[in-house]
Parts: sequence; structure tokens; C-alpha cells
Amino acid sequence: MVDVCLLGCGGMMPLPDRRLTALLFRCGGKMLLIDCGEGTQVSVKMTGWGFKAIEAILLTHYHADHIAGLPGLLSTIGNSGREEPLTLFGPPGLRQVVAGLTVIVPALPFDILLAELPPDCLSVGHVGDIHVSCMPVEHTTPCFAYCLELKRAGRFDVEKAQSLAVPKAFWKRLQNGETVEYKGGRYTPDMVLGKERKGIKVAYCTDTRPTEGLVNFCRDADLFICEGMYGEDEKLPDAALKKHMTFSEAAGLAKKSGSKELWLTHFSPSVKDPELYLENAAKIFENSVAGRDLMMKTLHFE
Amino acid sequence: MVDVCLLGCGGMMPLPDRRLTALLFRCGGKMLLIDCGEGTQVSVKMTGWGFKAIEAILLTHYHADHIAGLPGLLSTIGNSGREEPLTLFGPPGLRQVVAGLTVIVPALPFDILLAELPPDCLSVGHVGDIHVSCMPVEHTTPCFAYCLELKRAGRFDVEKAQSLAVPKAFWKRLQNGETVEYKGGRYTPDMVLGKERKGIKVAYCTDTRPTEGLVNFCRDADLFICEGMYGEDEKLPDAALKKHMTFSEAAGLAKKSGSKELWLTHFSPSVKDPELYLENAAKIFENSVAGRDLMMKTLHFE
Repeated sequence: MVDVCLLGCGGMMPLPDRRLTALLFRCGGKMLLIDCGEGTQVSVKMTGWGFKAIEAILLTHYHADHIAGLPGLLSTIGNSGREEPLTLFGPPGLRQVVAGLTVIVPALPFDILLAELPPDCLSVGHVGDIHVSCMPVEHTTPCFAYCLELKRAGRFDVEKAQSLAVPKAFWKRLQNGETVEYKGGRYTPDMVLGKERKGIKVAYCTDTRPTEGLVNFCRDADLFICEGMYGEDEKLPDAALKKHMTFSEAAGLAKKSGSKELWLTHFSPSVKDPELYLENAAKIFENSVAGRDLMMKTLHFE
Repeated sequence: MVDVCLLGCGGMMPLPDRRLTALLFRCGGKMLLIDCGEGTQVSVKMTGWGFKAIEAILLTHYHADHIAGLPGLLSTIGNSGREEPLTLFGPPGLRQVVAGLTVIVPALPFDILLAELPPDCLSVGHVGDIHVSCMPVEHTTPCFAYCLELKRAGRFDVEKAQSLAVPKAFWKRLQNGETVEYKGGRYTPDMVLGKERKGIKVAYCTDTRPTEGLVNFCRDADLFICEGMYGEDEKLPDAALKKHMTFSEAAGLAKKSGSKELWLTHFSPSVKDPELYLENAAKIFENSVAGRDLMMKTLHFE
């Protein structure tokens, strides 16, 4: 089970009733944040999920509306009592940006680990049980989309375990993913498990133009959170110029990728009420939702 | 006439219903901001005063709760169409801090002028018609208090002008503060004006312990905006340790300085409702007010 909270749904600048886009993902007692615009810490506080369990922050890119909240959040995580290291992931430039922003929070009680992803990076690795993948997207500056996945192992297969003569004493450990070495033999989880079952996949994609690569990257997402900077199709030239998307472009990605649900986010300040334009997405992909600050969803294994 | 708006009244971290302390001062079409915590740009937007006329930002010190909103605000000022330079004033360290924070807003359409004030600085100079003075205060890091004053010239004194044989043709220009050179003679405003009259004085003082120096600095302020990190007198040891003040200490400064009105601000997140502790200030200085976000006042010449 994972909990997802869209902390804010604004792009460019925070508004009195709309915070900047950021996503909080909670699974197994650990949290992962994507992006950290100004005011993100206020939204995190409003979730009631606390600050201390934020294990990592994934940054899509370094435009101010996606990262200006970082020093304040780090300060507040420090005040929450966290002493374990926190990892920041992001495209090239991470070191310089974090060195700059943290000049105003010089004495944090935890270490910051920096994982600067190479420009063509496709896999970030694991944060707790969460598997994180990424891909470079098409914005005005190096920028990544991220997928967060909770994998689900296959069912325990008694016949397989017996046919491979796996000692019963190891079954539980193998089922839990452990590999066991015993008297020269090596027993691996796949010897007792059936085929991996469908897990939970959340894709987060902003700021970018829609690309074919994104269709594959977001394939079969249970929840696809995608920028929709502009509601009207007529704004396509603006979207193309500024390397953003219209609602209908985001819906096109959702449809082609076979995603189950689309949350639109990162609205231009000129989009006063995203609901007014939702039909532009829904006519292409029915299960389209206009993001709202603090919109939450719990996703379960099928 | 000047307009003053307390943009936020929180210290340490922003809360869902309380932004971080910052003050916006407007006079003669120009604005001056003191401090810029995370979220300040949202409060500025809510004033309806616009962003473009912000001429200068005075920074008390570089703790995150007083400056983390700077890159976002600069970005939004840029988007407002400002092209004239904007000046930042602050204690030693300004260059390094601004260089760090602006790494995420690399292409602003206006120049930033940096005025790093020496540690013992007492006068900043003029921003438009506003005269700005400062003094170092007692915090855990170099920190300044600021006074903003709109001076008021004396009344026009016809008898004086006539007795000094000032040509009538120059009276108006001299009254407006101009000095006139004519046929080897030099005519100055003081030759036609009476004694300078009382102007408008606003003092802003956070974060610091109360000091005798502050009493003189804030002398006769029309509005004294002062930190009150803790409401209860029992928190005095915390206040002393962390170099902050209790409500009653702030009220003591207001009384001794002969200020007309005290706005308490920069409340600890533990002070849920400052009104509950207001009596601790009011019993020392009657005209004490618990700050609220977006509290505004217009001050006129007497």
C-alpha cells in the first residue's frame, strides 16, 4: 500500500490558494518527496505525515518554482529530530544548486547525500521498498520525469519449492526475498516464488513537452501525475515555446501509456479554475482529474 | 503618508495560517521590504500593491526564516516587468548569501545591487523619500534593526525669507527642498523654512534581545514592530538563550522608547494564539497589538 499526496498544483509562482507542485509518496513508514517549491513545507505539515520520515527528495529540475522551498524544508526536517542522512537526487547541477541554497541552513543535524544523476540516467535505485526510475524529458533546462514503483513478488509456489528440493526451513526467508547459502548450496527467492505480480506504479512528469519516450516510461501507471500548464488547446503555441503541455496533450500521454488515472497539475497562474478546462482532457482520457492542493489517494495491490 | 503592511507574523517556520515575518512599507509610489521569509511573495500578492515598485529589500540577518523567500520573490518581481535595478541591504555576508540563493534564478531582467552594511553600520541612506537607519542588535548571528522615516520639512516662513532677502521667484523651489544659485548668491531651503517638523517613524526590530541601544534607536516611533517570540514571562530563559524576546520585554522597549504603538510579531510556532498572552505586553505598554498576517496601517503626518 502507498499513500500519495499532491502537495500543491501550481506552476511558476505560488498563489494565495495554490501552492507549487510537489508530490509526497509514503510507503512502509518512509517518505519520498518529488520537487520542493516555495511553501512545500507548509503542505507537508498539513498532511499530518510528519517531516522526520522523508528519506529522499527527487528534484525534476532547478527552476525556482520546483526547488525554492528546499532550505526551509531542510531546516524544518532538522527541527523534527531527524539525524539520519537524507538523499537528494537530481539532474546535473545538483551540487552547485544545493551548495547555493543551503548557505542559509549551515548547521543541519543530518547529513545531506547528493546523488547527481547523469544526463541520460534511467534508474535511480531503491529508497526503502520504493523502486525509482527516471528519464530525461524535454524542457528548457535538464529535467527528469520519475516513476515510483512498489514491486510485488510472485505467490509462494509450494510445488516449485518441493521440486527444487528447497529445505522447508528456508521457505519463509526466501519468500521474504532473502538468499540463503547452506552447505555449499545457494537458494534464491525465485526458487520458491511464482512470476512477479503487478505492483503499484506512480509516474510524475513535469516540466516537459509530451514525448514518445514518456509513453513507454509511464506505461500502465496506476496514477499518472502530469503537468497541464495550459487548459485551452489554443495555448499550444505557448506550451510548445515554453516546453510545457496543454491539458489535452497530458491526456494523450495518459491514454497512450495505458495509465489508469491522470492527475493534472502545475497550472499556470492564468488558469484560475482548472475544472473549467477539464473536459479538454476528459474527452481524450476519461479518468482525468484536475489536481487540487493536498489531494490524496491510497493505492493498494490489486 | 506611508502604508505599512505586516506580511506575516511567524518565526522559525511558516504555518498553514501564519506566514513568516516580513514588512512592506509604501511611500510615494515606492516600496521597501524588510525581510523575505518563505512565502513572502504570496503575502505581497495579497496586499494588492504589486511587485514592480519594490525598490529595495532590507535584510535583518540570514536565518532561513528571514530570507528563504528571496529567490521566489525576485523571480516574481522579474515577471512583473521590473527592469530598474533593485537594491538589497544586509549585514556582512550578503554577497555570499545572495550568490547562493540566486543560483536558481539566473536570468532576472533587472540588476541586483548589493549594499553589504558594515558590522557597526548606523545609517543606510535614502530609498526614495524614505530615510533608513539601522543598528546592530544582539542575536546569535549578525543582525540589524531598521528604522524607516519619512521626514517633514518645517513650515514656510515668510518673515524669515523676507528678512534674508530671498527673491520671491525662488520661494517655491526652495520650499520643495531645492538649493538655488543665482548671480553669485546661494539660496538654501533652510532660509525659507521653519524648524523641521515631526515626520513619520517606523521601527522594525527582530531577532534580538532587548538592549538599551534599541531604546534610543526606536525613540518616539509612531509604530514599533518588534519580535515577541514567547508570550509567557516564564519563557524568559529560552528567550535569553536563543537571543529572542518575550512579549513583556518587547513592551518594555516600547514604553522606554516612547513609541506610540507596538505590533508584536515573529511568534514561535508554539504560540498558537498570541492574543492569549497579549495582556503580558499590555500591562507594561497599553497600546500593544498582537500582529496578524496582512495587518495594515496608514500613517499620516500629525
